[in-house]
Amino acid sequence: MSEVRVIEIKKSVFADNNEDAARLRSELKARGTYLLNLMSSPGSGKTTTLIRLINLIKDKLKVAVMEADIDSDVDAIKIKEATGIQSIQLHTGGMCHLDAEMTRQGLDNVALDGVDLVILENVGNLVCPAEFDTGAVRNAMILSVPEGHDKPLKYPLMFSVCDLVVINKIDVMPYFDFDMDKCREYVHMRNPKATIIPICAKTGEGVEALAAWLLNEVNNWKNR
Amino acid sequence: MSEVRVIEIKKSVFADNNEDAARLRSELKARGTYLLNLMSSPGSGKTTTLIRLINLIKDKLKVAVMEADIDSDVDAIKIKEATGIQSIQLHTGGMCHLDAEMTRQGLDNVALDGVDLVILENVGNLVCPAEFDTGAVRNAMILSVPEGHDKPLKYPLMFSVCDLVVINKIDVMPYFDFDMDKCREYVHMRNPKATIIPICAKTGEGVEALAAWLLNEVNNWKNR
Repeated sequence: MSEVRVIEIKKSVFADNNEDAARLRSELKARGTYLLNLMSSPGSGKTTTLIRLINLIKDKLKVAVMEADIDSDVDAIKIKEATGIQSIQLHTGGMCHLDAEMTRQGLDNVALDGVDLVILENVGNLVCPAEFDTGAVRNAMILSVPEGHDKPLKYPLMFSVCDLVVINKIDVMPYFDFDMDKCREYVHMRNPKATIIPICAKTGEGVEALAAWLLNEVNNWKNR
Repeated sequence: MSEVRVIEIKKSVFADNNEDAARLRSELKARGTYLLNLMSSPGSGKTTTLIRLINLIKDKLKVAVMEADIDSDVDAIKIKEATGIQSIQLHTGGMCHLDAEMTRQGLDNVALDGVDLVILENVGNLVCPAEFDTGAVRNAMILSVPEGHDKPLKYPLMFSVCDLVVINKIDVMPYFDFDMDKCREYVHMRNPKATIIPICAKTGEGVEALAAWLLNEVNNWKNR
């Protein structure tokens, strides 16, 4: 079994998280590292999706991953074993979200030289992570089919702050009452500009579209 | 469409939640009302499970439900329409959990006379709700098959504080890599005394065992 670096994140000391997040965002811009904040419920398939996605883009971009979790390190190890990229584990010590300062504590432990893209897998939760700007360029979230198409009605803030909504586990749509059209409608009620990409991380279906979105995003941002 | 009472919960003012929870628990004991705190991830099937369960026990116990949510009221309406029992909606205004004082604010709006059992459907989240004693006699949680059998490894506190773990959506086990034996093992690593009841809320399979557990619980508690 691989070993990964495990960082114990400490509670943030900054009073103004928005200001701190803006500062982190410009520092990262100056060094050419794009930060993506990925959120979801527990069990929506974030880690499986990341493995598929990273294997499609790692020849084009230098990628690193930070996996935030209450206290396990299984995800960082899985990512490292399945993709070979730099992957570290952040332990939040019970905290339900990451803010900009906590994200910075993680980034201080990543070898950032030449890294084009850092993906932060936030704590699995649709409430608290949505409330804190991590300093990322974009917020993305994964909603899985078994969770139901009504989630944008129930977790309005999460869907408002996300630029990308990935709908995972579309292979099990026949076994659940999931209405894709309604889901699109509800997501766009919260954020009319959100991009929606349906995928099945298990089989790989749709992950190429996700990779294309991300490559385009990072390239556009680099040229801004 | 039915209307339900919607209560806007305010932030708690008590410094010591454990003390406040113990006080609420003895007040409820004195009036013979058992409080069950039900937690889970978003989309695990809490509301569907509650409807099945309540319809099996409502002739034996007088039941009321408090549905906590960030800001929608669809769940309280669904419960009321499908079971006919007293059902109120608590809005947490973005807060990710309920503590004892917030639970009390909800209970102040329930007609408690003769009510044997109040079920509190907590905010959908496996992190924060586990950290706060609501004053309930027991904590229960629903883990659904699509979330994966490894969740007790990732959300240790949630599984440590729960006396009952309901495993829902067992009808879709053939389509997911869910190992029921491993799940039992991981749950018992966190809490060796936890009761585990597999169900399918959609078809009703296993819900009778859940009803039997709850009836037995409430009756034993009444005679204590």
